[in-house]
Amino acid sequence: MKREDLTKELSIGTGTKIVLLILDGLGGLPRGGKTELESARTPNLDELAAAGAGGLTDPVFRGITPGSGPAHLALFGYDPLRYQLGRGILEALGEGVEVGRDDLVARGNFATLRDGLVVDRRAGRIPTSVNENLCRKLNSALSLRGGVAVRLYPGKEHRFVVRFTSQGLSDAVSDADPQKENKPPLPAHPLSPEGEKTAALVNSFIQDATDILKDSAPANTVLVRGFSKFPAIPTMAELYKLKPAAIANYPMYKGLAKLLGMTVLNAGPEAADLFQVLESHYAGFDFFYVHYKKTDTAGEDGDFEAKVSAIEKFDRELPRVLALRPEVLVVTSDHSTPALWKGHSWHPNPFLLVSKTARVDGLSGFSEKECGRGSLGRFESIYALPLMLAHAGKLMKFGA
Amino acid sequence: MKREDLTKELSIGTGTKIVLLILDGLGGLPRGGKTELESARTPNLDELAAAGAGGLTDPVFRGITPGSGPAHLALFGYDPLRYQLGRGILEALGEGVEVGRDDLVARGNFATLRDGLVVDRRAGRIPTSVNENLCRKLNSALSLRGGVAVRLYPGKEHRFVVRFTSQGLSDAVSDADPQKENKPPLPAHPLSPEGEKTAALVNSFIQDATDILKDSAPANTVLVRGFSKFPAIPTMAELYKLKPAAIANYPMYKGLAKLLGMTVLNAGPEAADLFQVLESHYAGFDFFYVHYKKTDTAGEDGDFEAKVSAIEKFDRELPRVLALRPEVLVVTSDHSTPALWKGHSWHPNPFLLVSKTARVDGLSGFSEKECGRGSLGRFESIYALPLMLAHAGKLMKFGA
Repeated sequence: MKREDLTKELSIGTGTKIVLLILDGLGGLPRGGKTELESARTPNLDELAAAGAGGLTDPVFRGITPGSGPAHLALFGYDPLRYQLGRGILEALGEGVEVGRDDLVARGNFATLRDGLVVDRRAGRIPTSVNENLCRKLNSALSLRGGVAVRLYPGKEHRFVVRFTSQGLSDAVSDADPQKENKPPLPAHPLSPEGEKTAALVNSFIQDATDILKDSAPANTVLVRGFSKFPAIPTMAELYKLKPAAIANYPMYKGLAKLLGMTVLNAGPEAADLFQVLESHYAGFDFFYVHYKKTDTAGEDGDFEAKVSAIEKFDRELPRVLALRPEVLVVTSDHSTPALWKGHSWHPNPFLLVSKTARVDGLSGFSEKECGRGSLGRFESIYALPLMLAHAGKLMKFGA
Repeated sequence: MKREDLTKELSIGTGTKIVLLILDGLGGLPRGGKTELESARTPNLDELAAAGAGGLTDPVFRGITPGSGPAHLALFGYDPLRYQLGRGILEALGEGVEVGRDDLVARGNFATLRDGLVVDRRAGRIPTSVNENLCRKLNSALSLRGGVAVRLYPGKEHRFVVRFTSQGLSDAVSDADPQKENKPPLPAHPLSPEGEKTAALVNSFIQDATDILKDSAPANTVLVRGFSKFPAIPTMAELYKLKPAAIANYPMYKGLAKLLGMTVLNAGPEAADLFQVLESHYAGFDFFYVHYKKTDTAGEDGDFEAKVSAIEKFDRELPRVLALRPEVLVVTSDHSTPALWKGHSWHPNPFLLVSKTARVDGLSGFSEKECGRGSLGRFESIYALPLMLAHAGKLMKFGA
């Protein structure tokens, strides 16, 4: 029996509330002896830490740097090695694209082709409005040509999502993207015999699009990558009898949440925006995933101060969440994004759980180091959900 | 997907260096309140501990006392339950015996047979030179008798390695060694139908050898045990794209390293010998396994003071390693060998990782206790390699 199957078997529906606050990429590395979190003034988080139980989590296992997909899946109680999701599907769902069982989705870029070479993979980052016009033009011109149904959905600047609809499509297709500039376009290749038909279809789509766009320089071709089909993944309601809501601003996180059957509640990017949505929908759900992106963005940018400031802004709004008095409140991150590393890393996340049934560790503040002293110890993120369910009274006894 | 397969998939080759210093059997038990490591004066290790991240490792899992094979395999990123190696193969490779796919190897002892009983399993620990003569004699006499190719390789005192070469040999054969003295010789038995032919062959070899040695008392028979074939095990280059070197003095460790595709660099037994070889080959490899045996030997002998002294000697030479400034430096052991236990034990190993990308725990010294306070927490040795790869920038991100 797999461990997640045990958690599923023991879970029961109750009215108690779990609030999971994710500060994306929160964990850091010290500069002058202090991490971003240790450098930030966080009186509210520190007070909360004094009242709860701390720990450190590894998103997958020690040493593994996760993408956002595996890191979040683990936090929601899904084994990230069992469920591996394509980036295309996350992006598509995040953009609000309906994806069904016969659909194949991928991420696309408008790009610039000159003298047979891809000279700009982002078409000079065309304005989003231009992108929208081009997608409209392509959608109508392609539908006139007939064949397999293809539809483009504009994203920001040069990005779009493309959806192909037909029976027997396969995601065993390589990226049609040379990845570097001043290279010739790279056609899609089948990665297995099932991918042959789809690769041909994708290449014919690229050729048609390039024909249609021939006078639209700098956006006169398309690159397509991350082919994904709708994954077979159970919902959080099926697994854990939860009625979950996701409060997020970024497409990727909303897409993942939708995939797991969460109700997506759109919000602005600030902590105040997120918490306002939490307040106004608090009665309707029993599990709230609240995603704050700014910490990760600052970490990716290598901007230590911006990350400190993003943490401090979050802290200032925190009392609004505390006022709701959820049975279980967790503050943690999906993965670390140290500003000194300028990207996701493998370092463990601070994890703080506050609940009437938690042992109180008496930590002196909320930080990587203090959480490392906490009674929850160091554990893999996949154990966060059973722990939250238990503290919320949502897990029955195992065995007699 | 298995975890080690994920690590394999994400690994990339880079020029960064990993130095793994193994003090064999380092972990101990307290005498008068202090373990061997806590009793030793180790200013260099203590200073290093203050600059790195600490943890405790379980070689296999809590409670399991490992042999050298599984303990080392885990440290090199091989699941010790997936890859189980016969002692014979390690001994043979360590002695420099070439082992191919059609070979079966085993460990042997010259022994004394009197009145149908094995009265001395070690033939009075005959001098190595006598052993060498006897092996020569047996090799030429056996080759004259024809049949399956058999070759003996002398070890120290009464020990040898024997290699049988023929298609269809099997390692499903029980030891031909009564284990206790004053018992009759024990023939080899097949452990499965595939072992039948091989058991007969082994027993005929023992009879032939005993015939040939009839006038060579006290070395007038042979005991043979640990039958092993060349195991199907991937190399560290195949798994993790490393260019690994092993710096060791003892046959067993060199044998294991060779099996995993490491380049074996012979060295003397002292820390100074090992580190000299490390210095002179530092440019040629990106992973260095440095094996220091004296701590384990002293532990096995139950000699607390000798173990303390071996640790102190190691510590004095340590600055030579630090001067190389590897991107990742780990100091740990394969398993514990407490002098009070006089053998391998299940107690966890102190583990210290020093790297620019490590969180600094500010430990007050290098000991079991201080490492137990460290941010790496307690983990199974199999995670040491992904952790080292990550800190060396040799692991890509998992998923999008």
